[in-house]
Amino acid sequence: MSSNGSIYLIPIPIAENSNIFLPPNIASTLNEIKYYVVENIRTARRFIKSIIPEMVIENLNFIEINKHEETDLQQIKRWIKQGETIGLMSEAGCPGIADPGAEIVALAQKMNVKVIPLVGPNSIILALMASGLNGQSFCFNGYLPIKDPARSQKLKQLEQLSKKENQTQLFIETPYRNNQLLQDLIKNCSPQTRVCIAQNITGEHEWIKTKTVEEWVKSMPVLAKEPTVFLLLA
Amino acid sequence: MSSNGSIYLIPIPIAENSNIFLPPNIASTLNEIKYYVVENIRTARRFIKSIIPEMVIENLNFIEINKHEETDLQQIKRWIKQGETIGLMSEAGCPGIADPGAEIVALAQKMNVKVIPLVGPNSIILALMASGLNGQSFCFNGYLPIKDPARSQKLKQLEQLSKKENQTQLFIETPYRNNQLLQDLIKNCSPQTRVCIAQNITGEHEWIKTKTVEEWVKSMPVLAKEPTVFLLLA
Repeated sequence: MSSNGSIYLIPIPIAENSNIFLPPNIASTLNEIKYYVVENIRTARRFIKSIIPEMVIENLNFIEINKHEETDLQQIKRWIKQGETIGLMSEAGCPGIADPGAEIVALAQKMNVKVIPLVGPNSIILALMASGLNGQSFCFNGYLPIKDPARSQKLKQLEQLSKKENQTQLFIETPYRNNQLLQDLIKNCSPQTRVCIAQNITGEHEWIKTKTVEEWVKSMPVLAKEPTVFLLLA
Repeated sequence: MSSNGSIYLIPIPIAENSNIFLPPNIASTLNEIKYYVVENIRTARRFIKSIIPEMVIENLNFIEINKHEETDLQQIKRWIKQGETIGLMSEAGCPGIADPGAEIVALAQKMNVKVIPLVGPNSIILALMASGLNGQSFCFNGYLPIKDPARSQKLKQLEQLSKKENQTQLFIETPYRNNQLLQDLIKNCSPQTRVCIAQNITGEHEWIKTKTVEEWVKSMPVLAKEPTVFLLLA
């Protein structure tokens, strides 16, 4: 089963007013696309308008993947079979990374459609770059368990794994629990383990700091309730 | 110890003629920088010229980090202490990911300099996006051992880990061994394990395909000796 269509994976900004971080081929790609599969229609429309103000949004077709309705999936399959050029967009950053877009890409791969990923902001890679921690071996773990003892166990397990494999461990947290996570890191990790806190990446108040647990303890910050990536290397 | 300087982590293209994948703030940042720490001076000069043809390269200062000379490290420290704005560039892609740049970033973090990562092409994230495999939990493992039994053991271990954690495992290979790695994947992994091969990302001959091991066996491609990311999800 093959098709002449293609699906573009289109990154969108991860911070306010940060279109300057988007490559120019995003605009030229948006200009060619009439069929969109998106995580959130409002976000997608607003983004397209911010890049191409003259675009007539009413001429575009959107399917929202959050709803997980079978009729929507059938419609996406029809677009693919018709050979349409489709754009996939998540609510922030790169589609397919830590969002429901991956299952649409999996469908496209299964239907043998050309999948074209575009370059754009990804908080995991940007945090890793700026951390100074090991970028030759790293692991993104998503969210940690919320409650103890599972949470402490997971942190200790990640620290041990990091030490054994010399592997940077990355994870994220719901913003209002950022300070709690820093407390838990300090409580469970060794004094010499390096911890990076990367907040508001590409945003006006971007803040990325790497210190040992021991150093963090000496000058505990009050973390803003903003999107944050945490990294550790034991 | 603090300084007013800053270090910009500047991505460069990963394929020929792919500057279109670079955000416009890379050019504006290059315009401001006179001090560079780079993996390869020739690559860095050529890149700067490709973005800003009128730049007088002779007015810029370069230190190559591959040489690992103590005098170079001392010079970088002096630039940081003087509060200079420094640009860090690797030979391809994002500095600090799978290259020696991370130790310079670690030094900058230690000296409490502002570290600013810029958005650009990263083959790991682009491959993951386009694979349709799990982007909520993934691990980059760099190169695998070259010889058996270590190589087969590692592949089996990664497949088991992938299954247990529902985690995408990524790794790279020296291009001339791409076909051997595909053979080894087929030999060691279960028929239902999904394997993605992502070649020449952002390049003219970009080719990204996800199939089960069983499907790959049925139609074995001859892989080009080109930069490739391999991904598996069991």
